[in-house]
Amino acid sequence: MTKRVENGRPDSAALADVISGLAALLGTRLQTSEALRFQHANMATSVNREPPDAVAFPQTTEEVVAIVRLCASHRVPVIPYGTGTSFEGHVNAPFGGVSVDCSLMNRVLAVHAEDLDCVVEPGITRKALNAHLRDTGLFFPVDPGADASIGGMASTRASGTNAVRYGTMKDNVLALTVVTPEGALVETAHRARKSSAGYDLTRLFVGAEGTLGIITSVTLRLQGIPEAISGGVCPFPSVEAACLATIATIQSGIPVARIELLDALQVRACNLHSGIGLPESPCLFVEFHGSDAGVVEQSERFAELAADLGGGPFTWATAAEERTKLWQTRHDVYWAGFKLRPGAKTIPTDVCVPISRLAECVVATQADIAESRLVGPIVGHVGDGNFHVGLLVDEDDPAEMVRVHAFMERLVRRALSMEGTCTGEHGVGQGKAKYLREEFPAATLDLMGRIKQAIDPLNIMNPGKILL
Amino acid sequence: MTKRVENGRPDSAALADVISGLAALLGTRLQTSEALRFQHANMATSVNREPPDAVAFPQTTEEVVAIVRLCASHRVPVIPYGTGTSFEGHVNAPFGGVSVDCSLMNRVLAVHAEDLDCVVEPGITRKALNAHLRDTGLFFPVDPGADASIGGMASTRASGTNAVRYGTMKDNVLALTVVTPEGALVETAHRARKSSAGYDLTRLFVGAEGTLGIITSVTLRLQGIPEAISGGVCPFPSVEAACLATIATIQSGIPVARIELLDALQVRACNLHSGIGLPESPCLFVEFHGSDAGVVEQSERFAELAADLGGGPFTWATAAEERTKLWQTRHDVYWAGFKLRPGAKTIPTDVCVPISRLAECVVATQADIAESRLVGPIVGHVGDGNFHVGLLVDEDDPAEMVRVHAFMERLVRRALSMEGTCTGEHGVGQGKAKYLREEFPAATLDLMGRIKQAIDPLNIMNPGKILL
Repeated sequence: MTKRVENGRPDSAALADVISGLAALLGTRLQTSEALRFQHANMATSVNREPPDAVAFPQTTEEVVAIVRLCASHRVPVIPYGTGTSFEGHVNAPFGGVSVDCSLMNRVLAVHAEDLDCVVEPGITRKALNAHLRDTGLFFPVDPGADASIGGMASTRASGTNAVRYGTMKDNVLALTVVTPEGALVETAHRARKSSAGYDLTRLFVGAEGTLGIITSVTLRLQGIPEAISGGVCPFPSVEAACLATIATIQSGIPVARIELLDALQVRACNLHSGIGLPESPCLFVEFHGSDAGVVEQSERFAELAADLGGGPFTWATAAEERTKLWQTRHDVYWAGFKLRPGAKTIPTDVCVPISRLAECVVATQADIAESRLVGPIVGHVGDGNFHVGLLVDEDDPAEMVRVHAFMERLVRRALSMEGTCTGEHGVGQGKAKYLREEFPAATLDLMGRIKQAIDPLNIMNPGKILL
Repeated sequence: MTKRVENGRPDSAALADVISGLAALLGTRLQTSEALRFQHANMATSVNREPPDAVAFPQTTEEVVAIVRLCASHRVPVIPYGTGTSFEGHVNAPFGGVSVDCSLMNRVLAVHAEDLDCVVEPGITRKALNAHLRDTGLFFPVDPGADASIGGMASTRASGTNAVRYGTMKDNVLALTVVTPEGALVETAHRARKSSAGYDLTRLFVGAEGTLGIITSVTLRLQGIPEAISGGVCPFPSVEAACLATIATIQSGIPVARIELLDALQVRACNLHSGIGLPESPCLFVEFHGSDAGVVEQSERFAELAADLGGGPFTWATAAEERTKLWQTRHDVYWAGFKLRPGAKTIPTDVCVPISRLAECVVATQADIAESRLVGPIVGHVGDGNFHVGLLVDEDDPAEMVRVHAFMERLVRRALSMEGTCTGEHGVGQGKAKYLREEFPAATLDLMGRIKQAIDPLNIMNPGKILL
């Protein structure tokens, strides 16, 4: 195959040409101030910040096409940008270039209530979309915690607490419009709920982390807001018991909408942060969606399954206030963690394993954290076998950071040894690129490289991510 | 980009070398008899039969690798073969070459009941898999009607009656092992239920119709067999009323497992074939999966929604015998059609549109059938907006066949004009390749072509399918 174009910073004259061309096109919607450039580097985690040379704020697909064509003609990197909430350095510009901030492309283009779908621009956030949908009786279920943009969520194949019931972005994106690295406009599919017409380009761009093009519109599946919701907390004597209860719940066909594991340390953090007063043992936070009678039946059957495994009491409610308080506690785990080590920074990471291996993986990880003298509460989307460790670290302690990095490597390798993956939902970005070589045989990475090369022969689209 | 390799028959000396090499490798598992070669051409429909030059029956992945490498080194086409039940000429060999029949690779390699997944070879059929799973309490839900092979179902992105609840092959394949056109072995993913690690190669091969490689193992999601099932038939005064009842059912969050539209002509055919004695008006066949109480509640709610739209009575049952008879009737629609025109051949085709447009599309199609003086009952996976026309034709009447082909073109264009697709589940193969140019802009087809070129630079893998 053709030799891959090497990464490298663009020629400075070429870069100056691009910046003046974009300023002519966009006026004040092209910015080069240092503050703004640094805001568009990685901000969410401790991955090094690598700012772009300029930030463009397009308002239309046509402007995105013009930006990409100008950059391509000068071989200047293009870095798609949503809200910057990713954890693995996806928005960094290691070779400089132009960050394309889609925040002004945030309109809802169409809502088709009868078809349970909508078409949106990539910059709209999931909360803004759900606010827009409120009167339709529909909602968009994917919830990664952060109020991320839909374009960014599609690009990182995001998921979150609802994925066990409603799937990930892979399952909820029906079609995309994408500007390719050469500035062509690709429609991947139409609004039919399924199709067998050709290669699945939709799924190719979902999770491509902006390395194959910039998404300029997204057609999403929507769900009817359930008639009734019940939810609650169930403590367990051990992580194993909580995981077994999860497996039993799914095997018996209970359509659980959320089932989240918090380990004892995470529960302690939540108690410190929210004063929620939970017993400091492993807990499952669960939620059921359905009819009035259905959610009661599901809750009662879950309580029985939990009790069989020594869990309980399962305290649940259908009233919105109680559930809201509970899920606010769940969503605040990121902030709660800091209570365990005030002044620390957090390093969030995730892996995913088959659920039969989850208990073993979590318990071994807890032991590893203890042996490594680290602080790391664990929270998991346990129905999918996906869990997060939110390490609380002192970045100024080099000896501790050595232990942190060694722990992270072992965490990934433990997941891979259990037929798992180095990331269930955070994506590869820069932080996990090295692990792809451990996760996949060379032929798999060669195939990914061929696809990248075929679609982005100049390697200008978000270079330095996924494939090194 | 590099110029695409033109299609063409292989050099006859090269072909002879390949056949003798394969005979040395496979012994009697390499066949060249005319009868067997013709059996491996398209048999299911009236698409012309184009037999391969030889048929290979590998027993292992290693043998598939050896076959592909030998063919690649001589530029001889390779045509993956499952059960030959596809409708669009997918298994034809328009440029000759070697059909790789996977029927001997039909083992279940692993069942992981706790993880609700299994790993199988591509040649196992869906019924054989479900028979194997019977004692586990699990089942594999995708049901395209024919007892197709899992490898073929993955390759055509098959779906069927259960897709409204359980999704298509796109949603039910977790990972694949694939032999690329150059004979490399690619693992697309592992057994974790979700992953954000790199490009989604799984979904790239699902629906690629064997044009990018040969699948040699498939990891599938399984489902728990529901505690209770209810099902029944509900007549409606019109196609519109049946479609509106479907939309209302889905919008209100009733997790219907199957919802199938039969138009009045199809009901008549079923009455003639099965003596089921249904009222000859549009009908919905529906099925609900859940708990004992849940399926009763779902059935009653559906009956109310149907009645609001003038439908009913909804006759339903939870007893297995009655449901089995009903779904046998549904699965026999292919055979029932012949009762409408004894001696005719059938030309099955499918399109898919957003469900809000389905009634309009079906009604216009019925009018078109009448105006074209054709016989074509309609059956639809109406929850997905997907419907089939089973034209009953006299292939020896050239004037009729002109009307048939003109009708088929209008059917596709009608679906495309409603934001639909030229095929919801049958695939492109040879029969629908020309329509891709109408369904997608040139940039989309260019992107598909680049992917094909990058993965199969010699264009030996199932040439003449999808992309012309």
